[in-house]
Amino acid sequence: MESQKKSDLQPFFEPRNVAVIGSLREGRGEGYGVVQNLLHFGFTGNIYPINPSYSHVLGMRAYPAVNEMKEPIDLAMVITPPPTVAAVIEQCARKGIKAVIVGTEGFAEAGEAGARLQQQLVDIARSNGMRLIGPNTIGIVNTSNGLVTNPYPVDYDRIWKGGIAYASQTGFVGAQGQPLEDGAYPISKMCDFGNKCDVDEVDLLDYLLDDSETKAIALHMEAVQGGRRFADMLRKVAAHKPVLIFKAGRTEQGARASASHTGSLAGSVRVYDAVFKQSGAIQVGTWKEFWEIPKVFASQPLPEGNRIAIVTPTGGVGVVATDAAVEAGLALAQLSDATVDRLASFHPNLCRNPVDLGPIMVLTANPLSLLETTIAAVLDDANVDCATIVLPAGIERWASDIIAMLDRLRQHISKPITIYIYGTKVSVSQEVARQLQAIGLPTYFELETAVKALGVAVEYTKIKADLDHRAE
Amino acid sequence: MESQKKSDLQPFFEPRNVAVIGSLREGRGEGYGVVQNLLHFGFTGNIYPINPSYSHVLGMRAYPAVNEMKEPIDLAMVITPPPTVAAVIEQCARKGIKAVIVGTEGFAEAGEAGARLQQQLVDIARSNGMRLIGPNTIGIVNTSNGLVTNPYPVDYDRIWKGGIAYASQTGFVGAQGQPLEDGAYPISKMCDFGNKCDVDEVDLLDYLLDDSETKAIALHMEAVQGGRRFADMLRKVAAHKPVLIFKAGRTEQGARASASHTGSLAGSVRVYDAVFKQSGAIQVGTWKEFWEIPKVFASQPLPEGNRIAIVTPTGGVGVVATDAAVEAGLALAQLSDATVDRLASFHPNLCRNPVDLGPIMVLTANPLSLLETTIAAVLDDANVDCATIVLPAGIERWASDIIAMLDRLRQHISKPITIYIYGTKVSVSQEVARQLQAIGLPTYFELETAVKALGVAVEYTKIKADLDHRAE
Repeated sequence: MESQKKSDLQPFFEPRNVAVIGSLREGRGEGYGVVQNLLHFGFTGNIYPINPSYSHVLGMRAYPAVNEMKEPIDLAMVITPPPTVAAVIEQCARKGIKAVIVGTEGFAEAGEAGARLQQQLVDIARSNGMRLIGPNTIGIVNTSNGLVTNPYPVDYDRIWKGGIAYASQTGFVGAQGQPLEDGAYPISKMCDFGNKCDVDEVDLLDYLLDDSETKAIALHMEAVQGGRRFADMLRKVAAHKPVLIFKAGRTEQGARASASHTGSLAGSVRVYDAVFKQSGAIQVGTWKEFWEIPKVFASQPLPEGNRIAIVTPTGGVGVVATDAAVEAGLALAQLSDATVDRLASFHPNLCRNPVDLGPIMVLTANPLSLLETTIAAVLDDANVDCATIVLPAGIERWASDIIAMLDRLRQHISKPITIYIYGTKVSVSQEVARQLQAIGLPTYFELETAVKALGVAVEYTKIKADLDHRAE
Repeated sequence: MESQKKSDLQPFFEPRNVAVIGSLREGRGEGYGVVQNLLHFGFTGNIYPINPSYSHVLGMRAYPAVNEMKEPIDLAMVITPPPTVAAVIEQCARKGIKAVIVGTEGFAEAGEAGARLQQQLVDIARSNGMRLIGPNTIGIVNTSNGLVTNPYPVDYDRIWKGGIAYASQTGFVGAQGQPLEDGAYPISKMCDFGNKCDVDEVDLLDYLLDDSETKAIALHMEAVQGGRRFADMLRKVAAHKPVLIFKAGRTEQGARASASHTGSLAGSVRVYDAVFKQSGAIQVGTWKEFWEIPKVFASQPLPEGNRIAIVTPTGGVGVVATDAAVEAGLALAQLSDATVDRLASFHPNLCRNPVDLGPIMVLTANPLSLLETTIAAVLDDANVDCATIVLPAGIERWASDIIAMLDRLRQHISKPITIYIYGTKVSVSQEVARQLQAIGLPTYFELETAVKALGVAVEYTKIKADLDHRAE
């Protein structure tokens, strides 16, 4: 990574201390909510609640005003009523704070008056060398230091640490609204840009390029200003890390809906598509894909080619997986003669890819052992670049043995794989998926997504090679 | 429905008694498994376990051979080793049984020898006026009488009774592999055709056309023989009930994979697409859609037009829902002046569709009351034909109030709606979805699917009108 400069976003994500400016009313106040989440997720820095009406909150000392404090402050999370925000930002400026998140709603997204108020914030920030995230945002997450600026209650204990940075233009993508613990998403950073009055995708990409915790970036966006600057940064980052984009407001009506809730226009989808393609970003198509597809980059190596093997205990799933593979730009691997011989020694019908174990598993005394040997044989094959493994791990009597099998197997597998699990009980499937994610196996409840994730990994491998080539 | 003839499939789905012919070995035998599931799901008819080595199984009397029984038998479920099946079918024929399911694997899907064995079964059946489902099948389900012929353990207690018939060419779509209880799929009948040596989609469609329990049909298929006959039947059924088709083996490689596990060739996807379109069937694209989209037909009226309203507590979701609506052939409803005035009286920004309550919900003391009034106002609007409602019902502190709200609302709503729920805990989301399904509200965990379901409902409404028109 060539850039060694200090990013403006460092104090946002790696503050030694955070001032929280907002209502500290117990259980209801937004400032209270932020302090509570910082404590709940174990923020490693100092927390300074700021509010003149309180001396203490949640067992901590509260301070009357940020500019009267002696302690240094790296980041302020401001969530006071709209008419007060400009004055609070002024105080932050006087205190020399360089990073401010404005959580408060009621700015550009609320109409003309709000837009003017928002411009005031920008003016203050610009004339003081301060950067702003928001307004109208739940802010950021950093799983390395427990930083969660969300002002709303989060009713679970853990955000899993991992290699994916998720950023968005909506608070919907946030700890208060998403099952981050249950989903076991491997997260490095999160950022809700809100109205994006200052800090935008370009700033974040620049920061994430050098962030060693982040292996892949998932970006939900509706609109971006400064297309050229954005395209240049995309290209720069894509040479090092995959950038997956979920572009909302693709239709004319969707773009209009976007304008009404963010206060900015989305622009032509054709232009976006061209920019993404030229810059090496990869588009995903749904919320589910936005969350699920990046998982493959958090733990798996990049595939060396596009030849996929599919191992399945049920033939019907193999057919759909094959369709999904072809549609994702993958080719069905042609198993080598040696592998065909090995598989045929298990059973004469086991010589084709997808490898359908269904008919044999019901006949064998130890079906999981057969499955394990088969997966190993297939992944050993030099003609195979990657694999999707289909497993009935959501059936209670199979679950723990399948986890143990995959735990053994993964230590010998050097190629990227995705796991599709199905089963009879959602709670079992969920628990197995969490355990598999915990040992670095990207696990999916939708077959087509499991296969497509490998297709996207292949696509990124080509993009990276192409960008490397151009850079030479 | 014009046809009043008795269908050949009636004894399959509505038998007064079932003979189960197979291994009765405790906990392992396939026959034992079938008997266990019949008992477990409360089959209302008589169960006759057949096996010369057992006098009793699961507290019931077992019989040595089906043709030595005095009791009448409507249906036999046969799951004995492949070489014995023909002889067992002969015995069934001698007993005068007209409906036989052959669960046994190892026929056409296993190669040439299996195909010859399979032809023997067909010959015996044909010359005795007997119909066969299978071989290589887990058979059928009827939620009206507790008939579940599945030979494998099912580790939950309930298959929800409802309006959808699910049929497939793979045992993957079965009670032993799918979370039918957790998913609360409203099921009337299920059928796994297996190798489809005799009974096929045409027979099933013919039966389901007259089945008052079935409101919609979801069909997974890889290949069908006799395209003309199939197309005619599709058209006949589609005039009365929606037929949704998930066609697997769409790609050349997928079709080859299909041939290897079912023993029959899938054929050109263009031909299938044309047949489906001309016959009024609607295609879905993934396993998830196969399961989820039909739900809208189980409980909701058909929409009178394609104008959708979207009510959401978060603007970013509104944008994606709008894109999904346009892509599903829906039009964003233009709210009437009266509705705009009503909404503006709640808040000046509340005048557009999608109706984004986000900024207001955080300001109001009783956000759910605002949501309820807003949903009612929007659905009252004569310009609105259907709606997708976005709800944070997967967040524990909202869950029960949202269920209560929807329970009140649904009694005043005469237009089709779908519910998209999101939230922080999967277990909460799942439980809420079950409760909403139980009161007849189709509930989705994927926004795009919730919206698309309404698009499919609109599409079917047009198909039905067109077929009605042609029939005049």
